[in-house]
Formats: sequence, structure tokens, C-alpha cells
Amino acid sequence: MTPQASTPAYRRLSVEERRSQLLDAALALFAHRAPEEVSLDDVAEQAGVSRPLVYRYFPGGKQQLYEAALRSAADELRHCFDEPRQGPLLARLTRALDRYLAFVDEHDTGFSALLQGGSVAETSRTTAIVDGVRRAAAEHIMSHLEVAEPGPRLRMTVRMWITAVEAASLIWLDEAKEPPVDELRDWLVEQFAAVLSVTGRRDPQTAELVRLLAEDA
Amino acid sequence: MTPQASTPAYRRLSVEERRSQLLDAALALFAHRAPEEVSLDDVAEQAGVSRPLVYRYFPGGKQQLYEAALRSAADELRHCFDEPRQGPLLARLTRALDRYLAFVDEHDTGFSALLQGGSVAETSRTTAIVDGVRRAAAEHIMSHLEVAEPGPRLRMTVRMWITAVEAASLIWLDEAKEPPVDELRDWLVEQFAAVLSVTGRRDPQTAELVRLLAEDA
Repeated sequence: MTPQASTPAYRRLSVEERRSQLLDAALALFAHRAPEEVSLDDVAEQAGVSRPLVYRYFPGGKQQLYEAALRSAADELRHCFDEPRQGPLLARLTRALDRYLAFVDEHDTGFSALLQGGSVAETSRTTAIVDGVRRAAAEHIMSHLEVAEPGPRLRMTVRMWITAVEAASLIWLDEAKEPPVDELRDWLVEQFAAVLSVTGRRDPQTAELVRLLAEDA
Repeated sequence: MTPQASTPAYRRLSVEERRSQLLDAALALFAHRAPEEVSLDDVAEQAGVSRPLVYRYFPGGKQQLYEAALRSAADELRHCFDEPRQGPLLARLTRALDRYLAFVDEHDTGFSALLQGGSVAETSRTTAIVDGVRRAAAEHIMSHLEVAEPGPRLRMTVRMWITAVEAASLIWLDEAKEPPVDELRDWLVEQFAAVLSVTGRRDPQTAELVRLLAEDA
């Protein structure tokens, strides 16, 4: 029984659909295993196709597939930050964090492997993809705060908080997902408000935002 | 003119002294250049020795030298955390941060290359060395706070703050070392107190520490 016979859909997929099916299969595997523990055979099996077919779409082999899967995960992560520009600011942040933490929960092992560094699959390209997500997160926050030209102190504060959220996510995965995700989310939002307040004592631009957040709540 | 003739000290160094001289030379180079921009010839030249001599001490070549230099930098960094157990707690943290930021200032490019990830010299071993420093920092903080068994919320708070300090250091290097180091240091200490307060609202163990810090100031 050839795969063609067992999966009638085999020939019907367009190039784009096939690529996307292989990426989904790869992402499902990379989400729950370290990159070094995923083989091309695993991906072929997960997608229900042959190994040569995987190679036809990803001639660069596992590294290419990993990077493509990572790019697709990064896009998904960026979507977590999409939030209508209405309602209280901290409530918007709460909803975005909710989606972000759901992503972390769903892609646990892959998320840890990626961010903990030292992975065999890590290259300057994978680092650039992750940095792109961080930058997007910072830009979303500035845009919701309606700050067109954030000064260095405000920028540093936001970037530090984003890093702290990443660290919290890794620790949370490491600690069997404790505390419960809702508590973690609220706690991170409170930390955001607290570090902004600290910066506000030294920086008039941030002080103004702190005033807005207080009025807005 | 052979190196032996020009540097009379050449033959006098013991194995340990020679090793340490080569490490110092490597560290001086890796501190201000990305690992990929340092060659073994550079290290030999910096130390005033021949390339074969460098290989005799570090047969694994540049990667071995990089890891050894990193281990030596990590030891130096740990020493930054040594602080007598006396006087107000936040003043102790301020002094330790002062030394830490001086280290960051001195090893700017190497510090960035190491922590920004995606470096060709990064392996699971280099990651483990960096993680060891982070763990040591967290242990020092817990020991000064006299917390023998930190709960998950307190541990997470301290580790998040340590990550945020790292992020701030990288951004600071990226932004031409602005704000001035004294301001950065005080700001980081204030953030420490602020995030502990936030956690204290949810965690009795941390609340008790917040009370102690307030009394202690």
C-alpha cells in the first residue's frame, strides 16, 4: 500500500497547501520536542507523506524546515498582539497576554528550546526571527500607549518588561505551569504598571503615561 | 629575532602562568570583538607568543579558548556578587550592581555577543556557563534576603528581575551606555523593590520581605 493509495488527498494539494501541511506537521513536532529530537522521517510520518517529498519542499532539510516552522510560529505569535485600540489600556494588555500565554502553553517544549539558547538549530537567522517578535511586541505596546517617539528610558522599561515576560514564561513551563495561567497573566500586568511607575519617577514622558493609566483604569 | 629572544619572560612562566596569560589575552580580545572576529593568530599576537604555543595549551583551538575565557569571565562576574552580609539590603544590592555594571562596561562587545544568542561560538556548554552565573546571582540574593526556602512566586520574581537586568545591560550597551551608569543602577534597584512589592500582594513570603526592606531602608 503506497501513501498515494492510502491518502487520496495526496495528489490534490496545491504546492502552497502541501507546503503549509508540511509546516503544520513540523510545527506540531517542534512544539513538543527539542529540535535535535525531531527527524525528517518524523515530519514525513506526521504529515503522512514520504521523506523525499519533504526534501522536495525543503531541500535544506531539517534546519530549513525548522526555520520555516519558526517563522510560521512567529507570525502566529505576532497575531497574539493584535488587539483593538479601545477600552482600558491594561485590559488590552491583559487580553494580549492571555493569547501569548496560551501560545506558550501550546508550544511548550519548542518555546523553551528556542529561547533557552544553545540549541543546535539556533543560528543568527533564528535569533533574528525571535528578535523580530520582541520588537513587534514593543511596537504594539508603544502604539497602544499612543507614544510616537518613546524616549530611551521608556523604551528600556518596555523592553525589560518584555524580557521579563519571556523569562516568566520559561520558568512557568519549567515549574509545571504553576502558578495558574490567569494568576501569572494578572501578575505580569501588575508588574508592567509597577515598573512604569518606577521609571515615571525619573522620566516625564513615562510619568505622563502612568497618569493616563491611572485615569484609564 | 625570535619571540624567545625578544621576551625573556617567555621561558620563565609556569604552565599555570602561561595558561593564565593566554586566557587574559583571549579575554581582552573577546571582550571587545564578536567571537567570529577573533582568530588564534590575534590571541597569539596579543599574548606575544607563537600560534603553535596557543595550540599546545588549547588543542581545541578557538572554541576551547573561547569557552575557557568565558569560564574565567563567569568567575569574575560571580565575584561581583560577593558582598558582606551587613548594612541595609538595598545598599548591598546597589554595590553588587555597581560591580556588575562595571564588568558589563569593561566587556561590552563580548557581553553582547554572548547574551544576544546566535553566536557561532554558542553551544550548550556556553549556555550552561551563563546559566550558572544567573543561578549564582539568584542564590546570592536569596541568601542576603535570608530566605532558605523561597517559594515559586518569590523565585520567579527574582529570576525575572535578573533577566530584566541582563536585558537592561544589553540595551544600555546598544544605546551608547545611556543613561549614566549610576542612574541605571539606582533605577534597577528601585525596580527590584517595586516588583517585590507587586509579588508581595499575592505571596505572604514576599510580603514579609517587603516589610523587612521597608524597615531596613
